[in-house]
Amino acid sequence: MSEVGPRDGLQSISPILPLEAKKAWIAAEAAAGVREIEVGSFVPAKVLPQLADTAEVVAFARTIPGLTVAVLVPNARGAAAAIEAGAHKLTLPLSVSETHSLRNLRRTHDQVLAEAREIAAMVAAVPQDSRPHFEGSLSTAFGCTLEGAIPDAQIARLAEGLMAAGCDEVGISDTTGYADPASVKRLIKLVRGVVGEEAVTGIHLHNTRGLGLANALAALDSGLTTIDSSLAGLGGCPFAPGASGNIVTEDLVFMLEAMGLRTGIDLEKLNAVRDILAKELPGEPLYGFTPDAGLPLGFRPAHEQKLEVA
Amino acid sequence: MSEVGPRDGLQSISPILPLEAKKAWIAAEAAAGVREIEVGSFVPAKVLPQLADTAEVVAFARTIPGLTVAVLVPNARGAAAAIEAGAHKLTLPLSVSETHSLRNLRRTHDQVLAEAREIAAMVAAVPQDSRPHFEGSLSTAFGCTLEGAIPDAQIARLAEGLMAAGCDEVGISDTTGYADPASVKRLIKLVRGVVGEEAVTGIHLHNTRGLGLANALAALDSGLTTIDSSLAGLGGCPFAPGASGNIVTEDLVFMLEAMGLRTGIDLEKLNAVRDILAKELPGEPLYGFTPDAGLPLGFRPAHEQKLEVA
Repeated sequence: MSEVGPRDGLQSISPILPLEAKKAWIAAEAAAGVREIEVGSFVPAKVLPQLADTAEVVAFARTIPGLTVAVLVPNARGAAAAIEAGAHKLTLPLSVSETHSLRNLRRTHDQVLAEAREIAAMVAAVPQDSRPHFEGSLSTAFGCTLEGAIPDAQIARLAEGLMAAGCDEVGISDTTGYADPASVKRLIKLVRGVVGEEAVTGIHLHNTRGLGLANALAALDSGLTTIDSSLAGLGGCPFAPGASGNIVTEDLVFMLEAMGLRTGIDLEKLNAVRDILAKELPGEPLYGFTPDAGLPLGFRPAHEQKLEVA
Repeated sequence: MSEVGPRDGLQSISPILPLEAKKAWIAAEAAAGVREIEVGSFVPAKVLPQLADTAEVVAFARTIPGLTVAVLVPNARGAAAAIEAGAHKLTLPLSVSETHSLRNLRRTHDQVLAEAREIAAMVAAVPQDSRPHFEGSLSTAFGCTLEGAIPDAQIARLAEGLMAAGCDEVGISDTTGYADPASVKRLIKLVRGVVGEEAVTGIHLHNTRGLGLANALAALDSGLTTIDSSLAGLGGCPFAPGASGNIVTEDLVFMLEAMGLRTGIDLEKLNAVRDILAKELPGEPLYGFTPDAGLPLGFRPAHEQKLEVA
């Protein structure tokens, strides 16, 4: 799994988490065993003041051994800053809905693909041993609140365009919470059919309609290995009061460990990280079922389970 | 799916829903297309005053064409009342944890199996054209808050015992919210291995740790067809503030319809049934993500989707 709370969670709330608290959060979550964290976004501070210190956050996160430090980059300018800061992974969102792309990034599809080419060239210029991984992410892939469903052919063309521009990988993102387990499987198959199986390993899901974990299960069944989630579902969902936005990390990790899938994450330590958010973001709702309910009596995490062949 | 709100939801809250409101709820949900509703439980009124009018509710629900009227029966005495009232389906819970069975029903496993035999004899005495379906349900099947995990051999022996006692079917119930998608598949396989595939069609899941819909998806993948859920997740979960107890009917139906699985249920009409609960149970939290978020733009229910072969 990939923790996206410090980026997707924090950008969705008004309070600005101080740099030291971000560091404490990231360090504690890495200490609990989380191996990939999207720590911020290289966007102008006037757009997202919550993430203005992303370069400092990256610099700190890079000091944590074994942690993959991921960031979002909206364009080549952001990517240049991300490369300079030393991020291990850059994700460029490309909204498959062109209406959404124009509203959100103020760019047409062709313009975003041009940015992707520029970023790929910059990435290629980095010496190989410190070269970051470059992902293009198909956002609004399961439908757009402005356009509705997006035609398969358009999604396929854009996935192909991202790889042709020089991305290492294509991600799939349910920006709007429109996905269901059947469409998750269908879209993974569609995109893999275009760019190859090894170029699709991750998915970004929202829990807007409560299907987040069911969709994650469908993605796992399809062989994906990187599922985005957010600690305490931070940020919530503007459309659904009481609903987390991203999948809740704690519940996702509980599901995976209960299923016998080793995440390397200690659930007790992970739950304890919530205390940092509770203290530093008073009044901000913290979501998640497992932290409230506790672990089942006699719960065995994956590494304590016998391997059983189904 | 099988709506269990009028039984499992109402027994979990203090306010008593008046008979007329129960009738309105059941009628509205049946009108939305729900074809099976567990309308109550034949337990002594002093134990569950909320369900004291179950006989009247059954009598009303039987007048709705096409509706399967299900009830819970804790013992032979309750079953006699259920048969007299004309219920179409009786479910006898048998807790696979004997500690839980003693605390909950004050009966050992052997005593519950003796009740099952007595009920089966009563059911067999009903003329065939009006004979109710008799299900024995393995509760705490995924683990017990008192005993933890229950050995497979014990679960298998009790499933066999229920069928030998004369049940038509064995249900599986995650009373404690301990299930995960892997254990759901494993337990369905285990029980089917003992009693036969056709004798296991239904599962009762809780959403205690947020995995309710993911577990439902696993059950669907295993070929089960009857998944219990509760409108608005009524009753909540005593262990997890903010969490529904049962799976939320609205979210389950949204998932199924989005996946192209025809439920025969109209989602707009289903959501409107919540108004009855909001009016009659003021202050009682109503759960569910889909009703708050609304349907996706351009959403097509299953019957409007083209059949696509995966």
